[in-house]
Amino acid sequence: MGTIIAVDIGGTHLRAALYEPDNTKPISHQRVETRANEPGVYDRLEAVIESIWPKNNEVVAIGLASPGPLDPHTGYILKTPNIKEWQNFPLGPNLSKHFNVPTFLDNDANLAALGEWKFGAGSGHHDVLYLTISTGVGGGVIANDALLQGYHGLATELGHVIVDPDGPICSCGFAGHLEAFSSGPAIVKYVLEEMEFGARSSMKRDANLTARVVADAAIHGDALAISAYRRAGEYLGIAVATFLHAFDPSIVIFGGGVSQVGPLLFDSFHASLKKRVFHPRYLENLKIEMAALGDDAGLLGALALAEISL
Amino acid sequence: MGTIIAVDIGGTHLRAALYEPDNTKPISHQRVETRANEPGVYDRLEAVIESIWPKNNEVVAIGLASPGPLDPHTGYILKTPNIKEWQNFPLGPNLSKHFNVPTFLDNDANLAALGEWKFGAGSGHHDVLYLTISTGVGGGVIANDALLQGYHGLATELGHVIVDPDGPICSCGFAGHLEAFSSGPAIVKYVLEEMEFGARSSMKRDANLTARVVADAAIHGDALAISAYRRAGEYLGIAVATFLHAFDPSIVIFGGGVSQVGPLLFDSFHASLKKRVFHPRYLENLKIEMAALGDDAGLLGALALAEISL
Repeated sequence: MGTIIAVDIGGTHLRAALYEPDNTKPISHQRVETRANEPGVYDRLEAVIESIWPKNNEVVAIGLASPGPLDPHTGYILKTPNIKEWQNFPLGPNLSKHFNVPTFLDNDANLAALGEWKFGAGSGHHDVLYLTISTGVGGGVIANDALLQGYHGLATELGHVIVDPDGPICSCGFAGHLEAFSSGPAIVKYVLEEMEFGARSSMKRDANLTARVVADAAIHGDALAISAYRRAGEYLGIAVATFLHAFDPSIVIFGGGVSQVGPLLFDSFHASLKKRVFHPRYLENLKIEMAALGDDAGLLGALALAEISL
Repeated sequence: MGTIIAVDIGGTHLRAALYEPDNTKPISHQRVETRANEPGVYDRLEAVIESIWPKNNEVVAIGLASPGPLDPHTGYILKTPNIKEWQNFPLGPNLSKHFNVPTFLDNDANLAALGEWKFGAGSGHHDVLYLTISTGVGGGVIANDALLQGYHGLATELGHVIVDPDGPICSCGFAGHLEAFSSGPAIVKYVLEEMEFGARSSMKRDANLTARVVADAAIHGDALAISAYRRAGEYLGIAVATFLHAFDPSIVIFGGGVSQVGPLLFDSFHASLKKRVFHPRYLENLKIEMAALGDDAGLLGALALAEISL
């Protein structure tokens, strides 16, 4: 296997890295600002790839991690809220044509799952569930050593499983999704609504409230902040119970900023999960761990995708 | 590939059939009563297999469909409510030893999914979701041409996904599962409870009420019976929306007695599904069909399992 370029299309930065075979340390790495709402994102992407293109020209593939929705089977970005000018956009085909190498595309959560399985916390496992709890909730599943992608390439949109049909409205506009309970913005929204209904808190009720500020307040004993994280953890436990019943993994890996708060979220998560799993065997030898790849999950996932696809 | 024996361990009958390569019509077939609560189920099973064993002795494998929970990786039946004397029982290993051929075991819902994919309604699809709506609710998933089994072999227990955390108690003892809303007994239970709260109906409030009787009443215009099936369909739609978001199949196949009632269940199912799917692309080219294999789903699934495992 030859040299691979991995690309991570993030909300703030476009990153590209060049990897030699069997080495997860890139031999070169570049990034530029995405400026997602300004024209020219695709041109900036081409430029950042060119900036690390090796002189010997020996690149066998480009792996691409991008926010979805997208179609991994065709390399098209679908109608997406993130980068306005990419609507049904042939990202993979365009890059393939320009650089004359095969490209492989999937969404950032699927590729973080793939990266963690191949190089990170899930290494050695055959059945992996990855969840990222952040501004949104995303997920990816490795089932019997294969990435679960689905017919349209839209499998494992795990932030959008319905955990309570009468629950709050999700960022996607539909009711009761996991993301509407356990994402950072959902935690903030719950706090602001409870304040509106008269709940007392040390936190200021303003538009700048963040999940991080709520976490700090909780650590200092604020009851509302504590209950907000407890609720997020409880619904996360309900969802993960359903994911165990659906996918039966040997490891659950958590990534994303909100999952960094520790017991604040995970005490109620574990209690809820234990209460909801309907057969004790699901928990036998089940590992629950934090993601190991950090900010490089997208790049390493894109690398892994190119490696398994070639 | 040589001759395969497929076995279906049902609640009322033990069935065994002998199949030649590339032929889904068995060359011989036998069945005996299971008598699940009486001793000797295993002996009866050995005997029914022996009764169709070919004189030339050329059997390459035995495929086994059984109610779960079970471990397809080891061939053990776990602690199960169905056959009392099989508690952590080495069904596969015992049969392998006795007949001196490899055995392959999985649960009846997974194997109905596999059978429908290989020989039935899902033929030609790569990503299949199968659901059986009957006394219980079971499911199976084919993802990218592979049966989703999971680490413990307990994946796709789709009757036990949580569709409403505050919902009714399931037969398994846990709250709010799909089976507690949409199975035959759940439909009956809802009717009886509504009657207890004073709902009027043409149906008699007694212990012999069945989902079939409720369906007949609904067809004759009984408002309570209609609402019971409508509710079952609504929650089925919520669950299938979550299954699309999780597995993204190209076909959803329905089996089991309750799914035979037609529009009574499926009108509200389709409305609910359409309302809950969070991206229209999941429904593009999605087929929703009835199972094609009928009572032979278990046998043909066991045959398919042996074929893909050899």
